[in-house]
Amino acid sequence: MRGWRVGVPGEAHPALAAAAVAALDAYTAATAEHDRATLAAVVADGADGTPTMRIDVLVEDAILGALARHPVNVLTEETGWVDHGSALTLVIDPVDGSANAAAGVPLAAFSAAVAEDGVFTEALTVWLDTGRSWWARAGEPSPLRTSGRTALSGAAVSLLRPHTADPGAGAAWWEVARRAARVRILSTSCLEGALVAQGATDAFADAATDTHRLVDIAASVVLAEAAGGAVRDVFGRAVELDTDLTRRWSGVVAATPELADELATVLREACQAGRDG
Amino acid sequence: MRGWRVGVPGEAHPALAAAAVAALDAYTAATAEHDRATLAAVVADGADGTPTMRIDVLVEDAILGALARHPVNVLTEETGWVDHGSALTLVIDPVDGSANAAAGVPLAAFSAAVAEDGVFTEALTVWLDTGRSWWARAGEPSPLRTSGRTALSGAAVSLLRPHTADPGAGAAWWEVARRAARVRILSTSCLEGALVAQGATDAFADAATDTHRLVDIAASVVLAEAAGGAVRDVFGRAVELDTDLTRRWSGVVAATPELADELATVLREACQAGRDG
Repeated sequence: MRGWRVGVPGEAHPALAAAAVAALDAYTAATAEHDRATLAAVVADGADGTPTMRIDVLVEDAILGALARHPVNVLTEETGWVDHGSALTLVIDPVDGSANAAAGVPLAAFSAAVAEDGVFTEALTVWLDTGRSWWARAGEPSPLRTSGRTALSGAAVSLLRPHTADPGAGAAWWEVARRAARVRILSTSCLEGALVAQGATDAFADAATDTHRLVDIAASVVLAEAAGGAVRDVFGRAVELDTDLTRRWSGVVAATPELADELATVLREACQAGRDG
Repeated sequence: MRGWRVGVPGEAHPALAAAAVAALDAYTAATAEHDRATLAAVVADGADGTPTMRIDVLVEDAILGALARHPVNVLTEETGWVDHGSALTLVIDPVDGSANAAAGVPLAAFSAAVAEDGVFTEALTVWLDTGRSWWARAGEPSPLRTSGRTALSGAAVSLLRPHTADPGAGAAWWEVARRAARVRILSTSCLEGALVAQGATDAFADAATDTHRLVDIAASVVLAEAAGGAVRDVFGRAVELDTDLTRRWSGVVAATPELADELATVLREACQAGRDG
């Protein structure tokens, strides 16, 4: 339907494909076998210091098991950096949208990018509830095409949920909601990034809350750029490979560079105005 | 997975089942054959005076064709009231989440309730992008079970998008976002209502914008009540069968009567405070 693939594409790097297949299998088994409370239970602190749910651990463990045969480095949500001395690094979010996944809201994704000598070259996002996938390799023709929209006025924008207790971030969120034609909160950054690459929505943004880790936006960089879009950080920081998972961004994924720049500017200025009261 | 059905249940009323099957087939064909602009084109004014997209007409026409052999009354989004002198009325939203459907955001639903002599007795919501369905008949045991949550604090709440230009509705939206643990905007009322019945989210609400028509919430009344939940209107109006599609509600679908009442009260009071400045 509409050019969406189901399953893992044959052109994907073997390590990327192996990780995705392991994630799909583990996710399907975990959600069939465990109830919501079990899946949502906090069982560890992740590599970035934030709490980890059991669903995250179950899927990540399956991925790392599948990758044992592949000589690549891995940077992943819970375990962090696993260095195998390779020129290739997989940047993986085993379960993007963990809260959705644990609760039974069917919007969760496996998402990973391949970095070659520090440059993102390939990405795959798989909607774990349906098997639909989005794949691209930098510099190669892709069937993905963004909407091409260049202005926030009239745009359909996905946002992370508002941080109502932060006057700056709260004002930034509201300003985008005020200017956009449509606002959605799907609570799954990687799937929302894929929908921008697919042309189904015009943009996705973290409204200046510095919530995004690299694993939340790395795949969207490759997918969006292959489809004619662009990724920015609200505060102008480069979205680049870094093994320090405590780094944060306020990512903006948009249909065009113009829209990405406008969204980043609107969010940054509204955030500053909100902080200044 | 998790007790979700795929397809139309065998226990459903034959007219309800026929309508759902026709909707699934027509939606699949329409989204495969037409591009976004064609699906989103406004081709008519609906029975309630709001614009109708081509995707709505294509699916509704297929439903009405399938129902020609069934001697029931029909109340539907675009055509309005079709009286066949029956004690049974189907209240149908052919494509809930039309904007999602036209754009390619895979969150759209067929949703319908059966009213017998004016009382809602059965409902079926089908996620058109996947075929998953939620069905219940009033007074019969159901596998659907809400989360049981009784308080807004800590709750995961789905909301319609905020109406930022309306000080009352804007304040009401923000107040729920401030009190809830999670906020989502999936832009499909019927699917969000089904997720409450399923226990995946705690509540869904129209934040005092009077956007809901009967077709947007009728099925949620049956599904939520069968699962232990409740439906309210923010301003206390009864959600009841009425063939006048210009009537509007600010619907609240919640895991328990307590949570429904709290949400309606919070929304009403915040809306009033916002209006008063």
